[in-house]
Amino acid sequence: MPRTPSSNPDPRTLRIALNATPALSRPALYRLAQDLDAWAGSPEPPDRLAAILGVPRAQMRRALAVAADAAAVAGRERAAAERLGARLLVHGDPGYPADLGHLSLPPPVLCVRGEIPSGPAVAIVGSRRTDAYGQEVADLFAKSLAAAGVTIVSGFARGIDAAAHRGALAAEGGRTVAVLGCGLGVDYPAGHEPLGREIAAAGALVSEFPCGLSPRSWHFPVRNRVIAALASGTLVVQAAPRSGSLLTARWALDLGREVWAIPGRIFDERSLGPNALIRDGAPLVQHPREILETLLPNARIPPMPASISQAPDDEHDELAEPPPDGFPGAVLAAIPAGALRLPEEIAAGLEAPVDQVLGALLELELGGRVRRHPGSAYSRT
Amino acid sequence: MPRTPSSNPDPRTLRIALNATPALSRPALYRLAQDLDAWAGSPEPPDRLAAILGVPRAQMRRALAVAADAAAVAGRERAAAERLGARLLVHGDPGYPADLGHLSLPPPVLCVRGEIPSGPAVAIVGSRRTDAYGQEVADLFAKSLAAAGVTIVSGFARGIDAAAHRGALAAEGGRTVAVLGCGLGVDYPAGHEPLGREIAAAGALVSEFPCGLSPRSWHFPVRNRVIAALASGTLVVQAAPRSGSLLTARWALDLGREVWAIPGRIFDERSLGPNALIRDGAPLVQHPREILETLLPNARIPPMPASISQAPDDEHDELAEPPPDGFPGAVLAAIPAGALRLPEEIAAGLEAPVDQVLGALLELELGGRVRRHPGSAYSRT
Repeated sequence: MPRTPSSNPDPRTLRIALNATPALSRPALYRLAQDLDAWAGSPEPPDRLAAILGVPRAQMRRALAVAADAAAVAGRERAAAERLGARLLVHGDPGYPADLGHLSLPPPVLCVRGEIPSGPAVAIVGSRRTDAYGQEVADLFAKSLAAAGVTIVSGFARGIDAAAHRGALAAEGGRTVAVLGCGLGVDYPAGHEPLGREIAAAGALVSEFPCGLSPRSWHFPVRNRVIAALASGTLVVQAAPRSGSLLTARWALDLGREVWAIPGRIFDERSLGPNALIRDGAPLVQHPREILETLLPNARIPPMPASISQAPDDEHDELAEPPPDGFPGAVLAAIPAGALRLPEEIAAGLEAPVDQVLGALLELELGGRVRRHPGSAYSRT
Repeated sequence: MPRTPSSNPDPRTLRIALNATPALSRPALYRLAQDLDAWAGSPEPPDRLAAILGVPRAQMRRALAVAADAAAVAGRERAAAERLGARLLVHGDPGYPADLGHLSLPPPVLCVRGEIPSGPAVAIVGSRRTDAYGQEVADLFAKSLAAAGVTIVSGFARGIDAAAHRGALAAEGGRTVAVLGCGLGVDYPAGHEPLGREIAAAGALVSEFPCGLSPRSWHFPVRNRVIAALASGTLVVQAAPRSGSLLTARWALDLGREVWAIPGRIFDERSLGPNALIRDGAPLVQHPREILETLLPNARIPPMPASISQAPDDEHDELAEPPPDGFPGAVLAAIPAGALRLPEEIAAGLEAPVDQVLGALLELELGGRVRRHPGSAYSRT
C-alpha cells in the first residue's frame, strides 16, 4: 500500500509528531527523525524500510501511522506546549542548542519553558538522597560559578540537583537550566513546581519528552545524556556507585567534555562515586576557582566565599617543592643551578660567617636540596 | 694541639657519645658520625677539620671535646637505655634497620625498646587533632594491615598516630613501631606511657634522640624522616596544609616509597592535605585491600571489615566500561572486534527475532558501543 508523496507533512511537523508519540522508543525515534528522507513518503513496504533504517518493524509501522496523521498530532503537542508557557525547538531550528548537535543521535525536539542561556555552562549533578555536605558543596559551587556568569545545568531532582539550581538562583544574575526526566506540565518531583517557575524565569526548563508525559525509570539515563551535552563539563558532587550521576559523567567523557569530582569520606556511600572518578583520573576539585580557571582561563575570577578561601594552592606547591626559608634559602639562592660553590665563597657573597653558611648547607643537604662534592664544594641537587 | 691516636675511642662508642650530646646539631652529628675517620684522632687543627667536613667550627670543637670523653659519655647513655629496658643500635650493628641506611645521612644511633619487626611495614600518619572519621580510618587500616602481617609505623602522637598504633595492637598478632620525637623515658605525650608499654611488647618504641631528652619542635621533622624511611609506604589519613604529616609524605616520596592518601571533605581543613596529595598524583585509597595489593601482590588478602567491604572496585571498572546487560550484551558479543555484521546475521546466530536485535543495536548505538555503516551493517566502536 504505497503512500503518495503529496500526503507528506513538512519535516518539522513530522519530527514534532514523532517526538510526541510515546509508543515510539527513544532510540528508534532518534534514528527515524534523523533520516526522514529515507522513509517518509517512500513507496517501499514498511518491513523493507525497517531493515533499511535499522529499526524494529513494529516501530517502523508506528512511525508510518504517525506520519499519516502528523499535522494533527503535532498541532496537539504545540497547543499543549503553549498552554504550559513553553515552545518547541526542533533540531535545526535557530534556538536549538548547538551543543546537543554533538550527540550522534540528538533529541529531535526540545520543549523549552524560558530561554536556554548562551555562554559557558557547567552541569552539577549528584544524589537525590544527599546530606548537609553535599547540599553545601552544590550550593557553593553553583552560586560561585553562576556569579561568574556560568549557567548551571542540572536534572531538577531532589537533593544535589535542587541545591545546584537554588544555588544558581541565589547568585545575582545567576542562570540555570533544568533538564527533566518527564514531560513539561507534570508536577515531578512533587512540590518542585515553584522551583520550576523560578528556573524558567532565570533560564529554562527543558524536556525532550512529550508534554505531560509521566516519568519512567528509563527516562533518566536519556535525560542525563542531554544534561552532559548541554554543559562544557560535569561536576559530580555525591553519587553512589552505579548511580545516574556517574552515567552523566560517562556521557560527558564520551562527548570529550570535562568531568570534575568532589572528594568525600570513604565510609560515605555517596562519596564512593566521585572518589572512584578521581581514581580514574577526574580532577579532584576543592574550590569553584579551579573549574573557572579551566573554563574561562582569561576571566577575572570574582571573590569566592570565605568557607574555603584558604584553598591550598600554595600548600600544593609547597608539597612539591617547599622553598627553604630565611638564611638557608639565601644560601641555596647563592648556588647557581649547575655550578659548584665553596662555603667560603657563599659566605663572602652573603657577608655572613662561614659557620652559619656551613650550618645552613648541612640542613639543605639533609633536606636533599644540595649535594656535597669532594673538596667540600656544593651544588644544587 | 694534636691529639694522639691512642686516645681514640672505638667507632661504636664514639657514635653513641656523639649521639648522646644534644649540643651537637642533628645535621652536624649525622655528618660527623658518618666520617669518623676524617676527624677522630686527626692531628689537624679543629677549624681545618671543620672546613674539611663541612660543619660549623663550633660544632667541630664540641665533637672533639666529646671524643676526648667518649667512653664516659657513651657509658652513661648505655646505662640510661638499660634502665629504660632499651638498647642502643648503632648504624652498622646487625639489628640496625637496613631501610634507614637508604637515607643519605642516617641517624647514627637508635634507642630501641622492644624489637623492630622484620617484614613489610606501612606508616600511617595524620593530625594530632582528629575527629571520628580520622580515628575510624586509622583504626580500620591499621587493624586490617596488621592482621595481614604488615607492621604499622607511626609517630606516637595523639590523634591519628595513637589510633594507628592502637588499631595495630587490636589485630591478632599485630605489630607496630612508634618513632618518638623525644628521648626514651620522657612521658610525652603525657599519659601515653601505658600505650608505649603495649607497643614495646608488640613491636618497638624507637628514638634517635638521647635518653630522657625533652621534645622540641624541630625534633618532629627529624622524627618524620625516620618514620618514612622505616616503611615501604606512608598513608596520610588527615593532615592540615603545611603539617608534619605532609613532610613525612615528602620524605617517603624522596626515598622512592609509596604515598597513599585518604580523601575527605573539602570544607574539612584536615582533609586538605590528603586531597592535595591526591591532586598531586598520590593514589586515593578507600580500602586497606588496595594497599595490600601494592605491597604484597601475591598475598592472600584476609577478609576485611564490613564497613567498606563494598569498596567499589567493580563499579570502578563499570565506570570505565559498563558491560551491556542481557540481550544487548549478547548482541554486542555477537559482533567480533574489527568485523561488520548485518542484523539478520546476528539474529540468526542468536536465534532471536530480527526486530529484537535491531532494538538492541539502536540501544548500543545510542550508548556509543556500535557504529552503523552504509548497508545497515554494524561494527563495534
